[in-house]
Amino acid sequence: MPRDTDHLAPEPVTVLGLGAMGTALADAFLAAGHPTTVWNRSAARADALAARGAVRAATPAEAVGANRLIVACVLDYDALQSVLAGTEALLAGRTLVNLTSGSPEQARDFAARAAGHGLAYLDGAIMITPPGIGGPHATLLYSGAPEALARHRATLAALGEPVDLGPDAGVAGLYDAALLGLMWSALSGWLQGAALVGADGVRAADFTPVATRWLAGAVAGFIDRYAAQVDAGRYPGDDASLDVHVAAMEHLLHAARARGVDTALPELLARQAGEAVAAGHGADSYARLIEVVKK
Amino acid sequence: MPRDTDHLAPEPVTVLGLGAMGTALADAFLAAGHPTTVWNRSAARADALAARGAVRAATPAEAVGANRLIVACVLDYDALQSVLAGTEALLAGRTLVNLTSGSPEQARDFAARAAGHGLAYLDGAIMITPPGIGGPHATLLYSGAPEALARHRATLAALGEPVDLGPDAGVAGLYDAALLGLMWSALSGWLQGAALVGADGVRAADFTPVATRWLAGAVAGFIDRYAAQVDAGRYPGDDASLDVHVAAMEHLLHAARARGVDTALPELLARQAGEAVAAGHGADSYARLIEVVKK
Ligand SMILES: [Ca+2]
Ligand SMILES: [Ca+2]
Repeated sequence: MPRDTDHLAPEPVTVLGLGAMGTALADAFLAAGHPTTVWNRSAARADALAARGAVRAATPAEAVGANRLIVACVLDYDALQSVLAGTEALLAGRTLVNLTSGSPEQARDFAARAAGHGLAYLDGAIMITPPGIGGPHATLLYSGAPEALARHRATLAALGEPVDLGPDAGVAGLYDAALLGLMWSALSGWLQGAALVGADGVRAADFTPVATRWLAGAVAGFIDRYAAQVDAGRYPGDDASLDVHVAAMEHLLHAARARGVDTALPELLARQAGEAVAAGHGADSYARLIEVVKK
Repeated sequence: MPRDTDHLAPEPVTVLGLGAMGTALADAFLAAGHPTTVWNRSAARADALAARGAVRAATPAEAVGANRLIVACVLDYDALQSVLAGTEALLAGRTLVNLTSGSPEQARDFAARAAGHGLAYLDGAIMITPPGIGGPHATLLYSGAPEALARHRATLAALGEPVDLGPDAGVAGLYDAALLGLMWSALSGWLQGAALVGADGVRAADFTPVATRWLAGAVAGFIDRYAAQVDAGRYPGDDASLDVHVAAMEHLLHAARARGVDTALPELLARQAGEAVAAGHGADSYARLIEVVKK
């Protein structure tokens, strides 16, 4: 038997919250042909969407009551709590996909309260800026009620690739923080490199294609290999040892200082690697440094 | 008219230095059908290569005199200087591709001396570990005599994708340092994320495919966009402002502290971003932080 979403017209959906992100979400649903009901605290935000075919709900209760699938993206979890106050009797049997930014603890707390209302709860994290919604780099992370993601996957795919992180509602928010941390580190590492080559007259536009090819190819390959080392708690440095990294880090620090480029970031990384070497782990791989981070 | 490499049998090449990397280089040339002459200070290292078809040279002069194209990968630039001592009269008209690790200043110094001997000099940096030589992620950066790279490109491509960084012999080594710095930042950012999700029971093997997809897709996309901002010296934060990043960094720090995960790296990034916000740049993009790095 086909699943209930396979043979039907595009599923109708409600979007709560029409900031830049909520508006992009509603537009992506409309573009994919889903009848879309929208609500926002200041109603004017719904005008342009209504002109593009969205149905305006006058109240949160009207918006919640309109559809089985409700996607929320508001300021924070407290704001969502206020929006839903008074709609409790309508929640049973529906699915709330909460794309509001928050902590894992807030998501788990929300999941527990949703369960009390008979509401299927999915917490989500959007790993793209609003203009990227529905585009090729758009990833959305979901955790919580697993049957809910399976049921609404085809609809949610209009926003971007859905990644299922399992039943713990807190995990999507935790991945969100972890991936943003990776992004800031990579962005700062790239800026550091751009400043270094820039000091000798190389344009960022020339350095950057080499840098992104390196990041997406060799660096992602190292990360893939080291994931197994982290899970095993063993870090053989066959390919490149911390001893070798520490020596190369000295070259980088020397080149940066000679050019008046800030060294706070490479100094921190060199200090952490140097401490691992001093503790006798010089023959291990870079993945050994997870032990420093985990403390 | 075809170029002189297009219609000939594979070009013969000499490899000086047979450590792990030099051996991988010689093997890649042999695998691509290039007659390969090898030399190493301790001759025993050449035994296995000779068994695989390489020609052993008894002395550096014999190795240098054997072929027009000479690829060197030894301990450091001083070691290469010693190897070449006494071969000066043989150098004119040949090309030396120096894949030894060193500083931009050492490369420029070597290029100047090579010019005095009528030797075409290319400095190079190998952005892969020895087992990756010749593989899909292998990138080799070259800078220096541009006609030399054009002439020997087909041969050098046996080692990995050749990237031409122009006539300044120091640039390859500078890119090397800049790309390694990016790698360490990305690896540490990934370890930080793995530790964070790991604290709630997520395996690195589960987190990592999401992390590398994120890095190669959305993060590389941000970097591409910000390269133009860095070159223009203007950093409009339309897509995501430093104000928004700083708020999200607080979420990450909170989540890390709550789990006993080290915060030295995200604290440094948050401090740099916070200083830019305090200086009035909160509406700018993350690329604004190049101004902190450049000092
Ligand atoms: Ca969330
Ligand atoms: Ca070099």
